Parts: sequence; C-alpha cells; structure tokens
Amino acid sequence: MTSRPWDTVWLGASAATFDPARPGPWGALHDAAVGVKNGRIVWLGPLTELPERPDEVAAEVRSVPGCWITPGLIDCHTHAVFGGDRADEFAARLAGESYEAIARAGGGIRSTVSATRGATDDQLRTAAEARLRDLAREGVTTVEVKSGYDLTTDGEIRMLDVAHAAGRRAGVEIQGTLLGLHALPPEFERDRPGYIELVAREMVPRAAAEGRARQVDAFVEGIAFTAAECAPVFEAAREAGLGIRVHADQLSDAGGAALAGRWCAASADHLERTSKAGVAALARGGCVAVLLPGAYLTLRDDQPPPVTGFRQLGVPMAVASDLNPGSSPVRSLRTAASLACSLFGLTPAEALAGVTREAARALQLDDRGVLSVGRRADLAIWQVERLEELVYWIGGDLLAGRVVEGIEDAP
Amino acid sequence: MTSRPWDTVWLGASAATFDPARPGPWGALHDAAVGVKNGRIVWLGPLTELPERPDEVAAEVRSVPGCWITPGLIDCHTHAVFGGDRADEFAARLAGESYEAIARAGGGIRSTVSATRGATDDQLRTAAEARLRDLAREGVTTVEVKSGYDLTTDGEIRMLDVAHAAGRRAGVEIQGTLLGLHALPPEFERDRPGYIELVAREMVPRAAAEGRARQVDAFVEGIAFTAAECAPVFEAAREAGLGIRVHADQLSDAGGAALAGRWCAASADHLERTSKAGVAALARGGCVAVLLPGAYLTLRDDQPPPVTGFRQLGVPMAVASDLNPGSSPVRSLRTAASLACSLFGLTPAEALAGVTREAARALQLDDRGVLSVGRRADLAIWQVERLEELVYWIGGDLLAGRVVEGIEDAP
Ligand SMILES: [Zn+2]
Ligand SMILES: [Zn+2]
Repeated sequence: MTSRPWDTVWLGASAATFDPARPGPWGALHDAAVGVKNGRIVWLGPLTELPERPDEVAAEVRSVPGCWITPGLIDCHTHAVFGGDRADEFAARLAGESYEAIARAGGGIRSTVSATRGATDDQLRTAAEARLRDLAREGVTTVEVKSGYDLTTDGEIRMLDVAHAAGRRAGVEIQGTLLGLHALPPEFERDRPGYIELVAREMVPRAAAEGRARQVDAFVEGIAFTAAECAPVFEAAREAGLGIRVHADQLSDAGGAALAGRWCAASADHLERTSKAGVAALARGGCVAVLLPGAYLTLRDDQPPPVTGFRQLGVPMAVASDLNPGSSPVRSLRTAASLACSLFGLTPAEALAGVTREAARALQLDDRGVLSVGRRADLAIWQVERLEELVYWIGGDLLAGRVVEGIEDAP
Repeated sequence: MTSRPWDTVWLGASAATFDPARPGPWGALHDAAVGVKNGRIVWLGPLTELPERPDEVAAEVRSVPGCWITPGLIDCHTHAVFGGDRADEFAARLAGESYEAIARAGGGIRSTVSATRGATDDQLRTAAEARLRDLAREGVTTVEVKSGYDLTTDGEIRMLDVAHAAGRRAGVEIQGTLLGLHALPPEFERDRPGYIELVAREMVPRAAAEGRARQVDAFVEGIAFTAAECAPVFEAAREAGLGIRVHADQLSDAGGAALAGRWCAASADHLERTSKAGVAALARGGCVAVLLPGAYLTLRDDQPPPVTGFRQLGVPMAVASDLNPGSSPVRSLRTAASLACSLFGLTPAEALAGVTREAARALQLDDRGVLSVGRRADLAIWQVERLEELVYWIGGDLLAGRVVEGIEDAP
C-alpha cells in the first residue's frame, strides 16, 4: 500500500462553508471535495479541481452524493449537567405561576442546586451523557457546558469535570464555562459580598489553573446578580485569561448588555429586554448576541430580542439550545435554530450561521464553525436537498454522518 | 413447553392508562402488569394482583422497571404523503410574505399538487416512509394521513395507497382520510361546482368502496372552500359511511366550526379564529377540537385557539403534528404536544390525552388510545421518571420500546 497524502476525502456533496470569503448566504460550494489529514481540513474546493484522482490523494474516499456538508454544529450555551428535573415547575407555570415567583419561593435554580449537590458523579455523568448524545445525534460536535448548580468551589469544578467526562463518552468536545454567579447559594444568604469574593478569589483562578473552563459567565438579573457585583469576578477572569459571557436582560433590562459591551465580553445571551442603548453597547464591545428561543418558548415570553437592531448595528447573532432543566428543557439544537426563525424572525441563513460560525465566535474558537483549510475537520453530513431544510423541519432524522476531528462516527 | 394463557406480560413500569374510570390526570397505575394475547390487552392491574407467577401466565415476560407505559401515540392529523418540499416558502414567509399571498400567487398547496402529481409511487413512498419512521421513533403507532395533493380521483386514491404502503414499512397503522376539498385543482379553475361534484360523486364513493379512507375532510377557508360547498361532499360521506372532519377557522372565521358542529363531525381542526358561537357548535355536535400548534408556530400566528372555551363547554381537545410541507413541517408528535403546552397553555395532562385518548376519538377509533382490557396492545414504553417529561423535553430520545398489536419493535 502506497501512502497517500490525505487521510480521507469526502466527495459529491454540496458544502455550506459559512466562510464569508465565499459568495451566497452560506458560502456554498457545489460538487465539493473536502480533504482531511490529522483531523484538519487540508483541501476544500470543487471536485473538478482536485489535484489527483481521489483514491490517489486520500487513503479513504467517502462518497456522499446528494448530501449537504456543514461545519459540525456548535451549541454555545448549555447547562447540560444537573441533577433532577423540573417537570413539576413546567406544569406549575402552565397553571399560571411565574418563573420569578417560583424562584423566590425556593424553586427554580435553587432546587436544581440541591439536586445537583445530592447526586453522585455517576448519576450526573450518565444523565448528561444522554443529553449530549441527543445533541450529537443531530450533528453537534462542540458543546459549551456551564457550571452553576453547585455554587461551592469543589462542586463547580466537579460539574465541569463531569461535563468533560460525559462529552468524551458522547463524542462531543466540551467547552467549560464557570457560572459561579448563577444564584446566591443558601450558605451565603446573608453575605452576598462574601460569595462574590469566593467566586472571584477562589473559583475563577482554580477553574483557569486546572483547565476546566475557558470562559466565565454571570446571570445579571433582579433575581440573581447586579452588574456591579460582576465587576470583581470579571476582573478575576481577565487576570486568569478567561473569556467573559453575560446572561443579559432576559426577564428585565438589568443592564446586562451594557455591562457586556463595557467589558468587551465574548457574548451577551438571551437579550429579550435589551434597550437600543444596550444593542449599541454590544456593537461597540464587539460582543456576539446569543439568542435562546427555547427559554423564550418555555417561559411563554412575548417580547422577542431586538433582532432588527442587531442587524442594523452589525451585532453577530448566535443561537443555542440553553439546555437546562428550568427554563429550556431543549435537547435539540436544530429545533432551537428553527424556533429562532419562527419565534424571532431569523432567516434560515442567520439561524444556521448562528449554530456554526457565530457560535464559534461566542466561544472564542477560531478553529471551527467554518469550513476552510486549516480548521478542524468537524463536519455534519445531511441527507437534505436544500440547506434550509435543517431549520424547516422540526424533528426528523436528517443526519447522514458526523465527523469529529476527521473521524467519522459509527452510523 | 407448556402453553401459557398469554403471549406477553410487561412488568415493573407505571402505566398511564388515560382511562377516565381510573383516578388522577392520566389514570396512572403503579408497578403495573400488562398482559397481552393475540395483539389485545387481556389483563391490566397491579403486579401484586397478577393471578399467577408472571412466567406461568405468559410465554414472554418483559421487565421494564422505572419506565412509564402509555398507549401508543396517535397522530390524528397529517398530510405525510407529498412530493417536493416548500422550504423556499418557509424562507419567503420569514422575509415577510403571508401564507395567503403565497397561495394566491400559485405557491402553497398548488405547488405541492404539481410536485405530487409529478412524483412516482416509489418517490412518494420512500419520502413518506422516512417521515413516518420519524414519528414511530417517538412512540407513535397510528397515523392519520390525508390525500389532497393530487385532486384527481385516481391520484387521490394513489396517495392513500402510498400512505398505507409507507405505513406498513414504517411499522405504523395508517388511517386514510380523503381530502378532495383541499384546493381547487387548476383544471377546474372555471368550474368550482364541477369539482365539488367530482369529489362528491366519484372520489368519496370510490375511497369508501375500496377501503382507502375512513373519514372525509374539507378545508373551509377564504382561499379554499366555503361551508356551503362542503354540503354535497359531506352528504356523500354520510351515505358511504365515512366520518367527517373539517379544517376550520385557521386563517379566518369562515364558519368551519359551526359547520362541523352542524354535521356532528368527528373533529374540527386548527380553530385559531373560532368564535364563542363556534365553540358552542362544537360542543353541541360532540366534535373533538384538534389543535395544531406546529402550523401556528410555522405561520407565526399570534391568536391561539379558544382553549378556555373548549374547557368550559367540555369540548375534548386532541393534538396533532399536521405534518405537511407548507404550514407545519413537523416530524415529531411529542414536540407538537410540547408546543400545545407552551403556545396554547394546555396542561401536560391535556396534551398527553390529546395524543392518545382524544386523538383516537377524533379518528372514531374505540379500540385504542386508552389502556384497558379488550383494546389493541399498542404501547409506548418511556425511559422517564415522570410522565410530564414527555412534553417537558423538546427533542431527546426518551423511548425505550414500542409495541404494535402486541409485537415489540426491534430496539
Ligand atoms: Zn443559560
Ligand atoms: Zn391539515
């Protein structure tokens, strides 16, 4: 056997590259060839321009005629590790109770905190693995997972460890995010500054030093933390070299977008109640707006985020599942993208860029989310005639194959 | 080997029977045993009351501890057989065009009619089979499929044949519905009465005589047919022994619910714009209200059907996918049920009865939709702790097994 320059070449499909250097809404390349070596894309272009015969150039030739190839999907905002579920609150909200009232009455995030603290590593990992497999089954290759349901230093690190372990088993790459500022833990009920201090002085440095998290997030909201309380934590993040994210303006305009803009955060997420000034702050700060229609749907919200404003000021939009037990029990990124169209008015091109290129940007990852030479060979191969079908169909098994760092999943 | 009285017994799960004779929102039975013989349920009760040891009473003992068993789900309103797709219209609507404007411009149902007429039996069957498999993968065992995309007698019969063939391959039982009054075919552009006559005199009698359809449906709407135009078709249906359904008051209050009530139709479907008088007519006529939140979401509607009115007057509510290429590209009945909660405010109990007991009622089937002795052994077995999880989670693989007429699917 002569050795071939590439490991694998994929042939015969159309490629949606999401490369802004290519024309069209998703930088399409028809009858494409994608050459991969050592987990990276080494060649991308029309099959007719392939330098040699496919079987001369690659050890393995994979023909996927009539399919579309996209970058592996990226779910850039999840809380996929948690104990228990909150199906009872789902029913209570349908009977008329508000999310805030449930939270103030000790339900909400706090109830997940006690369930998470009480669960073994195994229980947490098994449940998270099932959820991550559900995402993977729909073409997801990278998933961000936040801590935030333990709220002790050891417990937050444990959540991130569990996330990485579950991801390895489910075949998705995990990006950990420290969300110490998710809720005030009961132990600190009378000492808010003490908790902020704990997050800034202990959790953030440790998550960074031990490589568990790449970003730090904070829930800025009446029922959570103020913009001012975030400052020491964000300073600690800066110092530790971690990116900054903000849960912003979901239930009220608590200045989350303004804060994100001021800190040049990687993203601000939710944004249903962001003002014009908030949109401008995001534009100035170069932040990605991460839209989470699953939470909007589940909480029966009626004020969509200011999509028109984002477009006007050129704020990039990502879309994520927000997979969590309280406000977004959504185990399908494709459904989230579809809901972003139907509920928020995104075009199919915007929604699909939102789960690829812009999701990578929110995660500050420049090695994926776009198909181009040099990037990771994370691919999703779809049995669809038109790319729009990925957001048009709700449900349905459209995935023909998934490739993570050049390796194709067993079908 | 001694012969055992039953074929199979399922043990260890909780059963949501949806039997109104049992207490609680879904007539739950904990630590249940379900005995099956010749495809029917022959015993149902607490395991402790089983007359003999399980392996003495049944040839096969299937233990499913920690699961929930429900009736196999029933999707009582689909248009699952069609040629082409309408992903382009999905994009056009997101760019601001209305469904009616698209229809009047020759898009909409008419464009699916030409794609369906132009497709071979094989093409139609293969595509429908994939869609039905998607439904089956989420616990559906019975699917209603409507004709209405050919609008010639032979073509409508062909669509129903294709539906039955696709259902056999996908492992779901098909209930055919003749929807000749879906749109006016181009050949009859100048002869509406001629087309009504064709449906009443030729299509309905043939669909009945050849056993292709059990119900007749009509789209009553400004862009479709008037209530008066339905009368001869419904008379023909009565004469042929077929049930009556109505697509009612979706885009405008065109008197669809009133018509359904007058004819004591099995169901009226959609109902976003049904007036108080329409709700009262449905109650008087004993009709089921079939709610289709997938169409509401896809068309970006903002007026939900009068759920409170249905509750007050005791109109039973079913929920269906409305799986179709134009207004509801939804290939997940569980997602439709979840949307019925989040978009229309149904409780989990109402939504789940809507895809079991009430769906069977809309289809005039008294042999399924409820777990009780004598009914078909169509079961869905779920890996969930609480039954609410079936509507709480959007997406995710929750099904542990599916049983059709006593036979369990290969996992
Ligand atoms: Zn979140
Ligand atoms: Zn319909």
